Amino acid sequence: MTDAPYQSSSGSQPRIVIVGAGFAGLEVAKTLGKAGIAATVIDRRNHHLFQPLLYQVATADISATDIAEPIRKILKRQKSIQVIFGEVTSIDPQRKLVHLSEGSDFPYDILVLAPGSRASYFGHDEWATVAPGLKTLEDARTIRSRLLWAFEQAERSTDPEEQRRLMTFIVIGGGPTGVELAGSIAELALHTLAQEFRNIEPKKTRIMLVEAGPRLLAGFSPKVSDYAKRALERLGVEVSLGKAVEKIMADHVVIAGESIPAGLTVWAAGVSASPLTANLGVGRDRMGRVEVAPTLQVIGCPDVYALGDIARFTDDKGNLLPGLAQVAKQQGQHFGEALVKKLQTGTELPPFVYRSRGNTAIIGRHAGVFEAGETTLKGWFAWVAWAFIHVYLLVGFQHRVQVSLQWLWRYLTYDRGARLISSEQLPQLPHGRADRADLSRPE
Amino acid sequence: MTDAPYQSSSGSQPRIVIVGAGFAGLEVAKTLGKAGIAATVIDRRNHHLFQPLLYQVATADISATDIAEPIRKILKRQKSIQVIFGEVTSIDPQRKLVHLSEGSDFPYDILVLAPGSRASYFGHDEWATVAPGLKTLEDARTIRSRLLWAFEQAERSTDPEEQRRLMTFIVIGGGPTGVELAGSIAELALHTLAQEFRNIEPKKTRIMLVEAGPRLLAGFSPKVSDYAKRALERLGVEVSLGKAVEKIMADHVVIAGESIPAGLTVWAAGVSASPLTANLGVGRDRMGRVEVAPTLQVIGCPDVYALGDIARFTDDKGNLLPGLAQVAKQQGQHFGEALVKKLQTGTELPPFVYRSRGNTAIIGRHAGVFEAGETTLKGWFAWVAWAFIHVYLLVGFQHRVQVSLQWLWRYLTYDRGARLISSEQLPQLPHGRADRADLSRPE
Repeated sequence: MTDAPYQSSSGSQPRIVIVGAGFAGLEVAKTLGKAGIAATVIDRRNHHLFQPLLYQVATADISATDIAEPIRKILKRQKSIQVIFGEVTSIDPQRKLVHLSEGSDFPYDILVLAPGSRASYFGHDEWATVAPGLKTLEDARTIRSRLLWAFEQAERSTDPEEQRRLMTFIVIGGGPTGVELAGSIAELALHTLAQEFRNIEPKKTRIMLVEAGPRLLAGFSPKVSDYAKRALERLGVEVSLGKAVEKIMADHVVIAGESIPAGLTVWAAGVSASPLTANLGVGRDRMGRVEVAPTLQVIGCPDVYALGDIARFTDDKGNLLPGLAQVAKQQGQHFGEALVKKLQTGTELPPFVYRSRGNTAIIGRHAGVFEAGETTLKGWFAWVAWAFIHVYLLVGFQHRVQVSLQWLWRYLTYDRGARLISSEQLPQLPHGRADRADLSRPE
Repeated sequence: MTDAPYQSSSGSQPRIVIVGAGFAGLEVAKTLGKAGIAATVIDRRNHHLFQPLLYQVATADISATDIAEPIRKILKRQKSIQVIFGEVTSIDPQRKLVHLSEGSDFPYDILVLAPGSRASYFGHDEWATVAPGLKTLEDARTIRSRLLWAFEQAERSTDPEEQRRLMTFIVIGGGPTGVELAGSIAELALHTLAQEFRNIEPKKTRIMLVEAGPRLLAGFSPKVSDYAKRALERLGVEVSLGKAVEKIMADHVVIAGESIPAGLTVWAAGVSASPLTANLGVGRDRMGRVEVAPTLQVIGCPDVYALGDIARFTDDKGNLLPGLAQVAKQQGQHFGEALVKKLQTGTELPPFVYRSRGNTAIIGRHAGVFEAGETTLKGWFAWVAWAFIHVYLLVGFQHRVQVSLQWLWRYLTYDRGARLISSEQLPQLPHGRADRADLSRPE
């Protein structure tokens, strides 16, 4: 028995609960597990999701199962780690309890919060049903089904105006997700679907990328932004900068006063942190993040730590860290190791220091951007760098091989292997336009 | 202009409509397309489904996209073929119209019906919500989600009786689908999940295969049936023969008077033909099939042909052909070629002759059965024969390579790559037992 601050009320081992098995939570669990320290991981999915490739599921490039790995499988050998498939609804920091949706509670001595973020519609939650975000596999399947369905409906239509509407896709948000999604939709239309329809010409598909700010990829340097814009325009994507979206309806979008009929609108404009921190009694910023100390402890909550997208972390140069997979992963690794050391030797938690491995995004299959410090790669080399980084980061060995093979195949053939329309993601089986307002978005 | 019987009312080319792009319909479309003859294929899915491997999607061996290929992609080069994604609701043989669900009609001169079959609950349609069948990708995803969810619930439960219930899986029907599914669930529990739980032992999973008839695999010889039973029993599956299911509820099944608590029940006991032939004004047998002449023409309907599972075809020896993929595929090939010849040269349609390529089924990864005429293969060689036949039959080249690689990987590692629980297939996120009665089955 020691007098360490983390001593549990129930025994010598503190009860550690990790909420979320994304990039951050999973690293914490792995590190604790390797040291034989007991912890419970709770996630509302049974799988860890490799979110950076989610847009490729949305455009039918790869299958949902390629980027999702069962959490249990990843943590199989870490016998001290318990995995719970359940939805955390709230946290009681006074009684040190995590509440689950079905009514059960999990007590904790140390709480690690890493639930991630979700699409944020800037106060227009009604847009969620007509402009799906891209954060979950359900989102990606919804976009895939509606995208492919729009082409099917256009093929059936005899009204040229309606065909034009159905074949207009609007992506809102010019960050990496929006850029990659717009590029991928363009390649789907230009190459994959090109020969498959008899009444429509998929090459005439109109794809708009709408960004309210002055440039694409605001996290990169301006020359990269310019390059991305030109690369998208070469693929036929219309890039609209400095114009805000005013209204999104099932069949049209209003941008800077202009109404544009559309077959599908996708929301990639903003995210906000999971609302799980609402009861912690601490302030949250505009994006719903809680402020954390350099140790990743939530300021004002001694035994609660926040990692990844929900943490507002300011580095020693005063920069706010962005919501990136590599930030979350490094925080998870750092915190896991620090916690193991503290529990084993009683040392204080050291501060987290972020080391950027570079930013990358791709535009179609021949253009990419990669930026690390002063180094900028553009074009095909950046595409290769992107592919390597993403394949390397994929969790399971099987997925690395499989996703690599699929990419290679697709690269050589412009084939797409996962073009499923799931009737679950559509109101019913294909109907006329009147039904589109009923589209309901799972999640 | 000729006076051929198939002359269209609208011109010299008859309007050919094919309903269903399964094994039969797809072959007809391909053959007509290669001859440059115009035809319209209507399917309520956008994909052709390789149904013989559907059970492997249900047990998380492979991904849904591995066995589904977009119909448009398969028929891409057949420029005379129009593909329509829509649901046929009825047929008007007097006015020669096919009605679609959204209200549109397609006129035909020649109608090829190949819509396939669906699960049949022998008058107990209420069982459909609690015991999903296995005919569509949605079915397979539903079974996969509920199967994996049952283990998750058992892990959370503290009641040993409830854990036993959740870890009891009942497969009803001892044909190839039931045998393959039961074997595959057993391997999932024995190998894949073995090390992944902390509170339950997946090896203690109880799997029952219930067949009302006197033996498994009634389409094979009795010695094969005995072998299959022994092979399943070696995997720990309880095989129950000669006992009928009396009742299926969300949490238990009554078999021959005995109530057995169960975590999931799957229906593989019977199918009936699509009801699309209801308005043709001809009789249908107990399984909903319409009688066809040797030419595959529906007896009593001059311009309507029925292929595959909806056709009751009696061969020249008086045997009724079974509802198998190879029967459907051969009928499609035969009919397509015969129709091309008739349209080009005016010759009469020749009779269809079925040539069995042998029957095959597998039980786990070391046991299989293959029977062709007097030849019977059992064990590992039959497993290899099965694998070869199935890989060969897969429609697209990409899938052949990919599914082969996945199989090999799985064979070597007992890994399962597609263990996704989709929240769409569950009532909501994981809840307690009370919700199970609400499970709704997509279709």
